[in-house]
Amino acid sequence: MKLNIAVLPGDGIGPEVTAQAVKVLKAIAMDFNHIFTFNHALVGACAIDKTGNALPDETIAICKNADAVLFGAIGRTSFDLDPNAKIRPEQGLLGIRKELGLHTNIRPVIAYDDLLTKSSLKVKQIKDVNILIYRELTGGIYFGDHTLSEDGNTATDTCTYNRFEIERIAHAAFKAAQSRKNKITLVDKANVLESSRLWRRIVQEIAPQYPNVKLRYMYIDNAAMELIINPRQFDVILTENMFGDILSEEASVIVGSIGLLASTSIGDKYAMFEPIHGAYTKAANKGIANPIASILSAAMLLDHFGLDEEASRVREGVDKSLKLHITTPDLNTKYDNISTTKVGDFIEDFINHPDETNLN
Amino acid sequence: MKLNIAVLPGDGIGPEVTAQAVKVLKAIAMDFNHIFTFNHALVGACAIDKTGNALPDETIAICKNADAVLFGAIGRTSFDLDPNAKIRPEQGLLGIRKELGLHTNIRPVIAYDDLLTKSSLKVKQIKDVNILIYRELTGGIYFGDHTLSEDGNTATDTCTYNRFEIERIAHAAFKAAQSRKNKITLVDKANVLESSRLWRRIVQEIAPQYPNVKLRYMYIDNAAMELIINPRQFDVILTENMFGDILSEEASVIVGSIGLLASTSIGDKYAMFEPIHGAYTKAANKGIANPIASILSAAMLLDHFGLDEEASRVREGVDKSLKLHITTPDLNTKYDNISTTKVGDFIEDFINHPDETNLN
Ligand SMILES: CC(C)[C@H](C(=O)O)[C@@H](O)C(=O)O
Ligand SMILES: CC(C)[C@H](C(=O)O)[C@@H](O)C(=O)O
Repeated sequence: MKLNIAVLPGDGIGPEVTAQAVKVLKAIAMDFNHIFTFNHALVGACAIDKTGNALPDETIAICKNADAVLFGAIGRTSFDLDPNAKIRPEQGLLGIRKELGLHTNIRPVIAYDDLLTKSSLKVKQIKDVNILIYRELTGGIYFGDHTLSEDGNTATDTCTYNRFEIERIAHAAFKAAQSRKNKITLVDKANVLESSRLWRRIVQEIAPQYPNVKLRYMYIDNAAMELIINPRQFDVILTENMFGDILSEEASVIVGSIGLLASTSIGDKYAMFEPIHGAYTKAANKGIANPIASILSAAMLLDHFGLDEEASRVREGVDKSLKLHITTPDLNTKYDNISTTKVGDFIEDFINHPDETNLN
Repeated sequence: MKLNIAVLPGDGIGPEVTAQAVKVLKAIAMDFNHIFTFNHALVGACAIDKTGNALPDETIAICKNADAVLFGAIGRTSFDLDPNAKIRPEQGLLGIRKELGLHTNIRPVIAYDDLLTKSSLKVKQIKDVNILIYRELTGGIYFGDHTLSEDGNTATDTCTYNRFEIERIAHAAFKAAQSRKNKITLVDKANVLESSRLWRRIVQEIAPQYPNVKLRYMYIDNAAMELIINPRQFDVILTENMFGDILSEEASVIVGSIGLLASTSIGDKYAMFEPIHGAYTKAANKGIANPIASILSAAMLLDHFGLDEEASRVREGVDKSLKLHITTPDLNTKYDNISTTKVGDFIEDFINHPDETNLN
């Protein structure tokens, strides 16, 4: 298969981890006789530095010409501390989601047996957790009007959803549930928000089309608690943009490190693959960033094109690195000094020689 | 002291748990020679049943005539399942917050030594956690416009904050931090929301007035994770309405049961005290509801009027009940069948005879 992949490493640890994912994809291409080409483009704070714009037109063009986008992370502490900045790195990420129409964000949360003890949660709480979060990604309060009064003393954000946006992701989530445990939990705040009541109404309407899927509702505040005290109750979680942001980052505690969570963002025409973690400016260029979320995003990219065997090979490599403790310091207690690059190299090696790779 | 207390038990488990708090307050009044009078009023689904209105005028009047309000819980499953209901129990709670101008909601999150093993989190994660959440309670998306388009296909909620609202609670939170560990964390989503940027800007402006307090910022998604992986990093958390709702319910996992978390809501003229848990319709009338959150809300009521010794007596009673496992099933593994009323009776007994009460 020929794939043209746009690579947007972004800021902070983005470039380091994305480089490992690219390395892994190159190894896959080699071993399985695919032709993957990679076109790098700027996004986020580094794009602001060079062009004054968090999402340069050239980047959009490269993404639209590609078969898939591999995204790193954006953000920088100086912008976080400056609420007055008009141009912000996040505009790069939000902009590309909007430009490519990436309405459906899928975030798997899987408790790896080899990592159960790394979690802040008790092992018995998290064993066998396997959750798929469907987060709506191009609507809600993220993309409503954001206004500041002239005197600078009143700020307003608007959260809007329409039937079409909700139906689109709801159908996708129900279908996903059908190939899993047939359970879906809609998370909202329908006791307060009109938009949540619209979600609840529409999802209720759609549900009979998937008679084998059991639908439940949960308020976001309650879900934030239930996700910790009983995560095994969840199969597919369906939710709006902001609640999905919060729940998915929270869910990383189950897995043991946010450096492990990958995601797929799908639109009608385009698809993008990115770790759910941020740019962690402080950790950048130290070789300590966990590349696994980015590498697993690459595996999701392979899934997306039906390259099942290839994706499995990547995941086996990841599993093996976890089992052998070839992991960065966020996960390791066994060895010191296993760097971002070393983890990438190990998984690359595994892909090249799946039967030989071992601790060496 | 003479106190006129409005009692709004509400729905579900509200009446059962509130009855225990009233019992405890009566015992305190008796022992310390206060005169507490209690006026009960309707709110929530039970008020809808009887009057067609979740917050009848009479209830508002009773609250406004009182020195303090003791609130139970509102909500009912049938309303949760019906996104089309125009009259909803939550209007009672949100309405009373607005009517009484209860802008500052304070939710303590304290890991009890006797309960460390009850948490889903590992003991080493939560030992000594002591967080005070300052949640803005009468602004934000809760109280903005909620509109549905005429065709019913588009819903909008509006989140607005102004300088005054932010300054008011920010000063209160900084002052609280000064009598604690001098640390404050503002939780927001300033990388996306204009209202969050306003919060960040104003809190930044105010901070120099409290030079000994260390101010940090954290995005809500990150905070939802950090609250679990490293809760001891927090002292005072300051946040807007919706994020406070989510974080405080999530924080209950640290304490071991949501049945333990109490809150104070303060306005310029009025004050209300309520558990942070909901109505749990399913648990109602079974004698299994944990009354401790309600009883600790009564302790916060006593604090509010400077009745320190009285409040301490209540808390000692609670501590003793926890130590002796005189607790409802959510916490107990030692004894079966310790009911809501029994827990209330035990704490009442302790208040009457603090030196004698023991397992009997
Ligand atoms: C960086 C930020 C704008 C983004 C979001 O909130 O969507 C991130 O947290 C994520 O989850 O991808
Ligand atoms: C019942 C609901 C409207 C309420 C809220 O969201 O504020 C509750 O969850 C709370 O935290 O007091």
